[in-house]
Amino acid sequence: MSEILDLLAVIGRLLRAENVLILCHKNPDGDTIGSAAALMHALKRLGKEAAVLCADPIPSRYSYMEIELFQGQFEPGYVVAVDVASIQLFGDALQEYLDRIDLCIDHHGSNSGYADALLLDAQAAATCEIMYDIICAMNVEISPCIARCLYTGLSTDTGCFLFSNTTAKSHLLAAKLMEAGVDVAELNMILFESKSKARMAIERTALENLEYHFEDRCALMSLTREQIAASGVAANELEDLTSLPRKIEGVQVGITLRQLPQGSYKISVRTTAEVDACAIAKRLGGGGHSRAAGCELEGNLDNAKAAILAEVERELKRADAAAQEQE
Amino acid sequence: MSEILDLLAVIGRLLRAENVLILCHKNPDGDTIGSAAALMHALKRLGKEAAVLCADPIPSRYSYMEIELFQGQFEPGYVVAVDVASIQLFGDALQEYLDRIDLCIDHHGSNSGYADALLLDAQAAATCEIMYDIICAMNVEISPCIARCLYTGLSTDTGCFLFSNTTAKSHLLAAKLMEAGVDVAELNMILFESKSKARMAIERTALENLEYHFEDRCALMSLTREQIAASGVAANELEDLTSLPRKIEGVQVGITLRQLPQGSYKISVRTTAEVDACAIAKRLGGGGHSRAAGCELEGNLDNAKAAILAEVERELKRADAAAQEQE
Repeated sequence: MSEILDLLAVIGRLLRAENVLILCHKNPDGDTIGSAAALMHALKRLGKEAAVLCADPIPSRYSYMEIELFQGQFEPGYVVAVDVASIQLFGDALQEYLDRIDLCIDHHGSNSGYADALLLDAQAAATCEIMYDIICAMNVEISPCIARCLYTGLSTDTGCFLFSNTTAKSHLLAAKLMEAGVDVAELNMILFESKSKARMAIERTALENLEYHFEDRCALMSLTREQIAASGVAANELEDLTSLPRKIEGVQVGITLRQLPQGSYKISVRTTAEVDACAIAKRLGGGGHSRAAGCELEGNLDNAKAAILAEVERELKRADAAAQEQE
Repeated sequence: MSEILDLLAVIGRLLRAENVLILCHKNPDGDTIGSAAALMHALKRLGKEAAVLCADPIPSRYSYMEIELFQGQFEPGYVVAVDVASIQLFGDALQEYLDRIDLCIDHHGSNSGYADALLLDAQAAATCEIMYDIICAMNVEISPCIARCLYTGLSTDTGCFLFSNTTAKSHLLAAKLMEAGVDVAELNMILFESKSKARMAIERTALENLEYHFEDRCALMSLTREQIAASGVAANELEDLTSLPRKIEGVQVGITLRQLPQGSYKISVRTTAEVDACAIAKRLGGGGHSRAAGCELEGNLDNAKAAILAEVERELKRADAAAQEQE
């Protein structure tokens, strides 16, 4: 297990570090990229070498973060993982670094403790919230570029301040980042208001495949790799589709199954407050947060559906029993 | 024209006022209702009689605001309009009060000055931002209920902090309101995160009917009255569907046609900055703003489509010519 560090100890180590390699999780989202980019810029401002590495390409819409990718330009002296809850989430391409991760900075309560040291704040809505405190504590000015990186993680992980993980601190940080130079109109347009034709096509297919279970308490959407390929949609454009089924009135568990290129199904679980998403995913070898979790299952669509629905049913029954007990 | 007041002058008048009638605009939204409710609660805490009046019913999802509606329970001594830009927006039911509006509190730069006195802040993202300052200046504590009312206006007018009117002040206020007791997870769920099964069904149909024109510069969605009836969706649930086609990458004109119960087609036009939505709608007898406009056409779907597409093409050509001229 990791040594648990507080903010001050982390600052000490980062200020001593040289040639810092920053690792993101695969299928990178705004928070892992935003916190990696912000840390990279901050370390560079301190005169250090720093670069970012991710198993998958950084989506082009994040180009404003001006990320320097790691391509062997230095010998890594200190390896930091940001927003990565478990070792499986790095992807195969990062294999050679996985036994030497010095520090992990994360906001996932389920962090498996794979790194030598860990700074974890499960109350933070985004790893970027923690990264803001780190950068300020290192006495680096929040430049407009760093502010844009941090706003990206903060806004994408909170669904633009919509999700239940949003706190007063999230809004205070957004205000500070705007004062530091973020043009939210411009960024929100890039991050939330633009959908490709392919994404519209896959949304149509997803809605055609929408089914309801357990007296409409569970809504399930599925996409096969053939359907995904036919739409031409990029993997990262599928991420926020997962929030769709849970938004339906009365639905307590929203499930999205999407087939990965090698055939297995990536399953996303989204729940309302009464139902534990992590418990559902965990029993199938996955993990996550109490209201957003995920797992991966081998086998065909029918088998994957049957397996996840059995766990959903079990958790709904547990939630009902807990509710009755409370009465 | 109205006498222009500053915050202090407004406080003075409100503290002297008795039996305050607060008027909202018709087709009430979260900001007019939220600012009216917050002012009502604040005045009641000061020991005054106060009640809210609106030409249309307050949607039931806003019941948490605990609004006391005006039903003649006192003789109005002071009449305040909140978030109402012009006299036409009150609706016929409020006719008897329209020549005696003492004060208007608003954030619309276009306010026509119909009230005796006006407090206007066109920089405010929502009238609720102004109302927060008023209530604090009256030395009334922001109770959890008042905070919920103010958060409602703030979040709905900014599209949950997504739209370009969002400022650092908006986020700071959101943080303060959360600290005053707003459960944003609960409110956001009510305000933004809930779609009926019927709405999901009609969204599917709309996407199935999505077509692209003019080298994908125009996306068009249509719904017949039979399709709308089959989904069971309510008319007000269809409003924000109209923003969908314009969000597609590269689309400059998003068109939505929906058939009304009597058979004609209601057409919504949404455009990017280069294209004039109002010009398109106007030539078909409609009107609106430069980026959001609408009109109504008789005839069958094919005729309605042909008519609107002809105007879209004409306006795209005009926009191209204007762009060329600028070069």
